[in-house]
Amino acid sequence: MSGVRVLALSGGVGGAKLLRGLYRILPADSLAAIVNTGDDFEHLGLHISPDIDTTLYTLGGLAHPEQGWGRRDETWSFMRTLKELGGETWFALGDGDLALHVERTRRLELGQKLSAIVEVFARSFGIRAQIVPMSDDRVATRVATDEGELSFQDYFVRRHCEPAVRGLRFEGAGEARLPKCAREAFASPDLEAIVIAPSNPWLSIDPLLAIPELRDALHSAKCPVIAVTPIIGDRAVKGPTAKIMAELGITTSALSIAEHYSGLIDGFILDARDRELVDRFDVPIEITDTLMNTPEDGDRVAHAVVDFANQLAKAQL
Amino acid sequence: MSGVRVLALSGGVGGAKLLRGLYRILPADSLAAIVNTGDDFEHLGLHISPDIDTTLYTLGGLAHPEQGWGRRDETWSFMRTLKELGGETWFALGDGDLALHVERTRRLELGQKLSAIVEVFARSFGIRAQIVPMSDDRVATRVATDEGELSFQDYFVRRHCEPAVRGLRFEGAGEARLPKCAREAFASPDLEAIVIAPSNPWLSIDPLLAIPELRDALHSAKCPVIAVTPIIGDRAVKGPTAKIMAELGITTSALSIAEHYSGLIDGFILDARDRELVDRFDVPIEITDTLMNTPEDGDRVAHAVVDFANQLAKAQL
Repeated sequence: MSGVRVLALSGGVGGAKLLRGLYRILPADSLAAIVNTGDDFEHLGLHISPDIDTTLYTLGGLAHPEQGWGRRDETWSFMRTLKELGGETWFALGDGDLALHVERTRRLELGQKLSAIVEVFARSFGIRAQIVPMSDDRVATRVATDEGELSFQDYFVRRHCEPAVRGLRFEGAGEARLPKCAREAFASPDLEAIVIAPSNPWLSIDPLLAIPELRDALHSAKCPVIAVTPIIGDRAVKGPTAKIMAELGITTSALSIAEHYSGLIDGFILDARDRELVDRFDVPIEITDTLMNTPEDGDRVAHAVVDFANQLAKAQL
Repeated sequence: MSGVRVLALSGGVGGAKLLRGLYRILPADSLAAIVNTGDDFEHLGLHISPDIDTTLYTLGGLAHPEQGWGRRDETWSFMRTLKELGGETWFALGDGDLALHVERTRRLELGQKLSAIVEVFARSFGIRAQIVPMSDDRVATRVATDEGELSFQDYFVRRHCEPAVRGLRFEGAGEARLPKCAREAFASPDLEAIVIAPSNPWLSIDPLLAIPELRDALHSAKCPVIAVTPIIGDRAVKGPTAKIMAELGITTSALSIAEHYSGLIDGFILDARDRELVDRFDVPIEITDTLMNTPEDGDRVAHAVVDFANQLAKAQL
């Protein structure tokens, strides 16, 4: 068993596509991903970890191919009956998906740690990469909007990101600790790259960065830290990133992303469509097509990450 | 809206077949059923009420036609995934079925009463009969066996009724109260019959009779109380009734059933196959074919109950 060679910081769908690429091109066991749990919430008495599950499904080959969340070949008997009973149906829970929430909740109530539970789930799905929740402690992303502060899922799912974002805070992050396996991944002697996946920096990556221990680990990392842009031109590849940037008064551009991660990253992967910006960054730039529709697209970006990291490491010598 | 005309005491499947017959032949709103909750249990963090749900599914036209539990047209994605995750799969939970358990648990945690929740569920399924849990207080059937005391579901589902039964107790029954709607049903001025359904007397009816308030209400009932036999010849129509009777040293015969209910019932419905026993009972006997395979069979037994009750009432005048 080799040690961890690439450590990724990731949110949900966008990040998972890069993770899949890294998982495909690297030897098994050599990828670890620390995944956002700021979106986790209690719903119908169940503990739901959307980004963790998206990652599990994506690396396990179980993800819905188009939908961007949930499982392939899912059935919906639970939701149909719940609707009939007048239950809360604003958050879609597929029948197979539900098993993760019920089993996770049961195990949490037995006192098991989320990181240990996710490890069991990953193994069940035959995944040999490490998928690590950013903390076993509760961190809750809260969205300040023009309609008041909302919980993440209220903002994201129930309100479809409609309220204008004024700011974000990550309740509990200041006191949250990294799980042991995350600390170990940061300390891996084989580590070649730490990559910030092309997830939404404000919603999906900032919760991780709000954990002091994680921020410290990034600062003291001995390998290059690279971010992959989630912005191409003035548009987000997916989701509300561009809308949120506009609402926060930030220019929608890859430049703003690199600036957001300034001081944390040693390199930035820019989309080929933005190559005219290449001279305007304060960090080394690698250019590739960052759009990931197919698994092969993920491989391409994953290769860019690993190659770029090796190149940066050599330059540092 | 008419008042309750027939009040049934019932367990799961066998009882539900008679309830369906009564529901079909009586005007809507005139049937109330008080249903066993001694089998209720917590599983995977969910509150499960097997007999209540069987009754809901049967009266709602949603029951599986052959299986004896669960829903028709059910899907099983949840169980498949739960098994993959190494979860507890000894109790089969269909995807649609799960919605009832999740929504019931959620509402219970909000402080709602089980009887109120079941009322909402029944209305959701378009059921106009009253389905009433025997109590909103927790009563747990405990089975003393040659392998020690087991919880009901451990005995019934996990161990397939294999351990020999030495006795039963109904934890909490002594302090349990009837729900208000059950008291009201007993007090209905239109009540023509109280019927003990052909459920297992020891496992499914005794938990109800262990509630002092219910027993008192039966004793002071102003209408005839009738039991329908769950035994034909020396065999139970369904389930472990005959096995349990043998283990408890009770002769497997309809005579033993009538004796079990002695002092509580004013009449007994005997199966036509047992007509040679007719003179050996201490209570008036009505004879019919009590086997209920089709809905029409249920209608026949239901008619026998109502006619017999009216006949007994006239005789009492």
